[in-house]
Amino acid sequence: MSGSSFGRAFAITTFGESHGPAVGVVIQGCPPGLPIDEKILQNALDKRKPGNGIASTRRKEPDTPMILSGTFKGRTTGTPITILIHNTDAKSTAYSDIAGLFRPGHGDFTYEKKYRIRDFRGGGRASARETAARVAAGAVAQLVLDPYGIQICSFTMALGGIRVRHFDAGAAAENDLYCPDTAAAHAMENRIKTVKAQGDSLGGMVEITATGVPAGIGDPVFDKLDADIAKAMMGIGAVKAVEIGAGIAAAAMTGFENNDQMDSTGFLSNHAGGILAGISTGEPIVVRVHVKPIPSIGRTQKTLNQDGCETTISTKGRHDICAIPRINKVCESMLALVLTDHLLRQKMLA
Amino acid sequence: MSGSSFGRAFAITTFGESHGPAVGVVIQGCPPGLPIDEKILQNALDKRKPGNGIASTRRKEPDTPMILSGTFKGRTTGTPITILIHNTDAKSTAYSDIAGLFRPGHGDFTYEKKYRIRDFRGGGRASARETAARVAAGAVAQLVLDPYGIQICSFTMALGGIRVRHFDAGAAAENDLYCPDTAAAHAMENRIKTVKAQGDSLGGMVEITATGVPAGIGDPVFDKLDADIAKAMMGIGAVKAVEIGAGIAAAAMTGFENNDQMDSTGFLSNHAGGILAGISTGEPIVVRVHVKPIPSIGRTQKTLNQDGCETTISTKGRHDICAIPRINKVCESMLALVLTDHLLRQKMLA
Amino acid sequence: MSGSSFGRAFAITTFGESHGPAVGVVIQGCPPGLPIDEKILQNALDKRKPGNGIASTRRKEPDTPMILSGTFKGRTTGTPITILIHNTDAKSTAYSDIAGLFRPGHGDFTYEKKYRIRDFRGGGRASARETAARVAAGAVAQLVLDPYGIQICSFTMALGGIRVRHFDAGAAAENDLYCPDTAAAHAMENRIKTVKAQGDSLGGMVEITATGVPAGIGDPVFDKLDADIAKAMMGIGAVKAVEIGAGIAAAAMTGFENNDQMDSTGFLSNHAGGILAGISTGEPIVVRVHVKPIPSIGRTQKTLNQDGCETTISTKGRHDICAIPRINKVCESMLALVLTDHLLRQKMLA
Amino acid sequence: MSGSSFGRAFAITTFGESHGPAVGVVIQGCPPGLPIDEKILQNALDKRKPGNGIASTRRKEPDTPMILSGTFKGRTTGTPITILIHNTDAKSTAYSDIAGLFRPGHGDFTYEKKYRIRDFRGGGRASARETAARVAAGAVAQLVLDPYGIQICSFTMALGGIRVRHFDAGAAAENDLYCPDTAAAHAMENRIKTVKAQGDSLGGMVEITATGVPAGIGDPVFDKLDADIAKAMMGIGAVKAVEIGAGIAAAAMTGFENNDQMDSTGFLSNHAGGILAGISTGEPIVVRVHVKPIPSIGRTQKTLNQDGCETTISTKGRHDICAIPRINKVCESMLALVLTDHLLRQKMLA
Repeated sequence: MSGSSFGRAFAITTFGESHGPAVGVVIQGCPPGLPIDEKILQNALDKRKPGNGIASTRRKEPDTPMILSGTFKGRTTGTPITILIHNTDAKSTAYSDIAGLFRPGHGDFTYEKKYRIRDFRGGGRASARETAARVAAGAVAQLVLDPYGIQICSFTMALGGIRVRHFDAGAAAENDLYCPDTAAAHAMENRIKTVKAQGDSLGGMVEITATGVPAGIGDPVFDKLDADIAKAMMGIGAVKAVEIGAGIAAAAMTGFENNDQMDSTGFLSNHAGGILAGISTGEPIVVRVHVKPIPSIGRTQKTLNQDGCETTISTKGRHDICAIPRINKVCESMLALVLTDHLLRQKMLA
Repeated sequence: MSGSSFGRAFAITTFGESHGPAVGVVIQGCPPGLPIDEKILQNALDKRKPGNGIASTRRKEPDTPMILSGTFKGRTTGTPITILIHNTDAKSTAYSDIAGLFRPGHGDFTYEKKYRIRDFRGGGRASARETAARVAAGAVAQLVLDPYGIQICSFTMALGGIRVRHFDAGAAAENDLYCPDTAAAHAMENRIKTVKAQGDSLGGMVEITATGVPAGIGDPVFDKLDADIAKAMMGIGAVKAVEIGAGIAAAAMTGFENNDQMDSTGFLSNHAGGILAGISTGEPIVVRVHVKPIPSIGRTQKTLNQDGCETTISTKGRHDICAIPRINKVCESMLALVLTDHLLRQKMLA
Repeated sequence: MSGSSFGRAFAITTFGESHGPAVGVVIQGCPPGLPIDEKILQNALDKRKPGNGIASTRRKEPDTPMILSGTFKGRTTGTPITILIHNTDAKSTAYSDIAGLFRPGHGDFTYEKKYRIRDFRGGGRASARETAARVAAGAVAQLVLDPYGIQICSFTMALGGIRVRHFDAGAAAENDLYCPDTAAAHAMENRIKTVKAQGDSLGGMVEITATGVPAGIGDPVFDKLDADIAKAMMGIGAVKAVEIGAGIAAAAMTGFENNDQMDSTGFLSNHAGGILAGISTGEPIVVRVHVKPIPSIGRTQKTLNQDGCETTISTKGRHDICAIPRINKVCESMLALVLTDHLLRQKMLA
Repeated sequence: MSGSSFGRAFAITTFGESHGPAVGVVIQGCPPGLPIDEKILQNALDKRKPGNGIASTRRKEPDTPMILSGTFKGRTTGTPITILIHNTDAKSTAYSDIAGLFRPGHGDFTYEKKYRIRDFRGGGRASARETAARVAAGAVAQLVLDPYGIQICSFTMALGGIRVRHFDAGAAAENDLYCPDTAAAHAMENRIKTVKAQGDSLGGMVEITATGVPAGIGDPVFDKLDADIAKAMMGIGAVKAVEIGAGIAAAAMTGFENNDQMDSTGFLSNHAGGILAGISTGEPIVVRVHVKPIPSIGRTQKTLNQDGCETTISTKGRHDICAIPRINKVCESMLALVLTDHLLRQKMLA
């Protein structure tokens, strides 16, 4: 009950701190017989690796996954799958001078209030490093989704106030930001450079889509598919808003405009984002998350130290300028986890 | 595992269909010794009652709560509290002509896909009537919050595309829409009348705030306080987007702009919406939900019947024009449930 | 988290006190489409009804079940099934003179210590009356087991120190005690009469068997099928010991004696009681529960009142002499619940 | 949902196979600030180590625990505590000749039926090696119990059909079997030698006692303290029966004999075993578990191979003759886990 577990039928528990020996995950409920090896995990982890892209930290972690349990002769056995990712480039000394300070925008203050003790090194348990474990778990979830033909992808739709104006999925593969608009991608990169020089940071918006999800997945009332997706996304450190389908835009439409009518070809629109009454419609599931700027910045900010005295802080450690694009893979992984969980639950009704 | 339970330490299970004998809720984990009676529940239910306000259905339900268990001599005993709300004005005949149709924007199609059987009368389990049970539970949760001085309120910030421009909490009490801007409220009412005449419906946006929440509440990683709030809100039928604090606006700020700096007076801003790293800061918790328009409309829409044949539908039953303002109380109730759950969890660390 | 829920995939929550308006149960996870009506529930409830048999209380409860939700046109819909059983013969006045006393062998003292408030009327939530809700839920579980051909029965194997010597399943149907040994049944009945005249009470032992359970059901490690059965049985008020298969006798055997060898006809014995490493073998599942004597007795006993002063107590209310045979149906119901839960879980691996 | 998690407020998840790289555990819900180091864990693990005593395997595992997360500067932080115990003496080759056989009394057959794939080396996930992780977790639980003065101990009360006749707690410390009767201990040792020479194995009975548990711990109805203890114990591989307090003997007593009367000095007896209506009375909690003989024996037994053909088997690997006394520490650990879980839950009512 310390909040580190997610899912019910397909349930994961992550553990580990930024500057401890390792982060990792135990996965329960994975069906037996699925082909698995560390390469599959590595491919997923590489997409969220620090050091990727213009917006990223200079911390270099190979993020090598090690499978400790739950597989036999290259297949899952149905028993808990444990994956360990050792921390190799943790420089705790970089944090010793801020040990007693509450970094603005971080969990330092709230962890202190909650636990009255905290591992201050690199954010400890609150570090984004924990999401490596989620990505490894998401890669295992994807093994369950594969036979259904379910595919998950994500696009950077806004960054630093610059929004995508033309959507070209192919373009996204050609820039480091997974941005489907080449011109916008260039503008975003320039914005990053400018803001980096100012010792500041940026946020943005990511759209995640799952295709191939069969109709009928999701539980009604509290455990709606969209409710679980909202929890999954809002539980990612930097996310401050989650939309499903038309989302915020739906609030300004009339019922006639927003309703997805049907004819024999299927739904005539997808304002619902693939979910009605918490259950999948068979249309693509569309999720948007709004990501706050990285709180660690070089600019000087007012804060308190642990004794409640006023002071200032200016972060010198290695930090990303923007959580995008590394967060994109984390969002995809969380969506994979939710869908896998609900797909397995649905089997009980068959 | 049918999705009808919410919460862990303070856990509720709702049951009942729109046109069955009753809806209700079982509440587990309520501390013993709290003063309770049906009046407290009735007051809460009255705020969500059909028939309230210009945007509401003409269905008249007294929504009289009956406590079946868990209390003794006017106090909670620590055992499950069961509350029953009988359905008295259910006119199933109004639904017989749409029994075999999938109403656009409703869960008819998805329930059929999931269960292959469904109670089509008034949406059955997917009906907004289920939220009466949530409101009753929320009133019990509020009994736990009261000694902490935690108060929850909500305001209608947008409706039918009209947004609040001036915020005056006092004004909200003087219109049926809980809108804190008298001019906006009038515009909203006019918009409702126009759209109603067109046989159409509207959505909007509600902001919910909790004050008095102590710092240190919320679990890290997956069960973050904001993650659980997001799930709670997105699990309300019509909600399509959830924001915490600065929310969507945060994504366009720089880190320096968005970070809430501190001095000896406390936080200098509250872009975080009272939550950092999933744990409360002690500042007001601020949540915004974006509500889609009511899907039941008089205008003719294309749809399919249960045999997959094309047809059209035009809703004739008694329906709200807008989920606001009735949904406001439901949102407040869900926030009360999440906060109570996390407050009780936190006691285990003391 | 008040302990009133059981099961995970097929999950029930019971509620209600002995002398409140009703007891009841909410069942989640029941697959849709199963034929159900109140008669099925009534048949099950009749087997546990007060007033049955020589060992029973004179309290006359019709135990009429009312289905409040989760069914439509005589079939389950997949949404929560709520069953209410009203209390009609609760005589609270009978308890007013013992309101401030801790009855030996009852939960009065411990409920007081735990909650500092308690509904003393008839044991409140700790009353065996709560098991009516379990039996109703067990009847629904049996609907899931039926298509598998799984049958559950129970026999009274000991009562008041008298043990069954010859096993004749047919004989059990011919006495009120479900005892498969006519001579033993007579001796038990005489023992009951004698002890009743002395103002005392008796315990005994019940064996419950499930046949038709396919091999491969049950989770390993902590959620072993036998572990969940042990919890289910020990959670019935009067049960003080649970055995699986050879049980206690196994502890005195050698490995060679106890192991169930196999040949092409299957297992050559069933000392395991149908469960190996927590998973079903396909052989009958055999459980034995040892039931303590009813604590409410006419004989005078020493106890304390709520102020901690010494006093004596002699129960005058209407009470059973022995929990057997009414408890037999409760045991069968709990086994049905465990098996249904694990059968549904297993579907996720298919 | 693969069954490898236990507990709710203090919740553990174990992982790992007998012949994989490691076994381990993730502990959630441990309060922050408790002093912890690997020595505390090592001391506990040493008591369950293979190679201890006359009845034990010759497999030599140092069972060195490694803390991967959840601590900082020698104290728990409130985040998940992960403990890894590497397997160093796993000889898989010893199992290659029985890879395709179903060993009688083991989970080979049932795992095959459940998962259709299994790690046959040393029992894989079903190996008693998994209990090392439980013991490590139990040592952490004990850190929570310590400030309450709660102590847990266990005694071997029967082995190979030989029962303890005189109870002398001091005597237990002087023999390898933790047997509180020196004469019985000698007889047990002789019985072990004899049976070992015959290529056979033995079972027995262990009594576990917890003192210092305050009154008022445990949830009513399904999550009774004794119900959770029964599940905890029956979930240990070799356990076939569980008794609480007078247990089986209670079934033959009258109510007057079995009831624990009270006077101003407290309870006058403890037939209840420290639990009434599922809640602790403040008296010692007394549990007895009956342990089946080790199923791996040298004697030749009939069985089937994976193709369903008849064959025989005679185990040649390194195996214990009796699960006692190694299982004693596992039982103590499981009791510590249940008590810790319920103590933390109780805090929510305070």
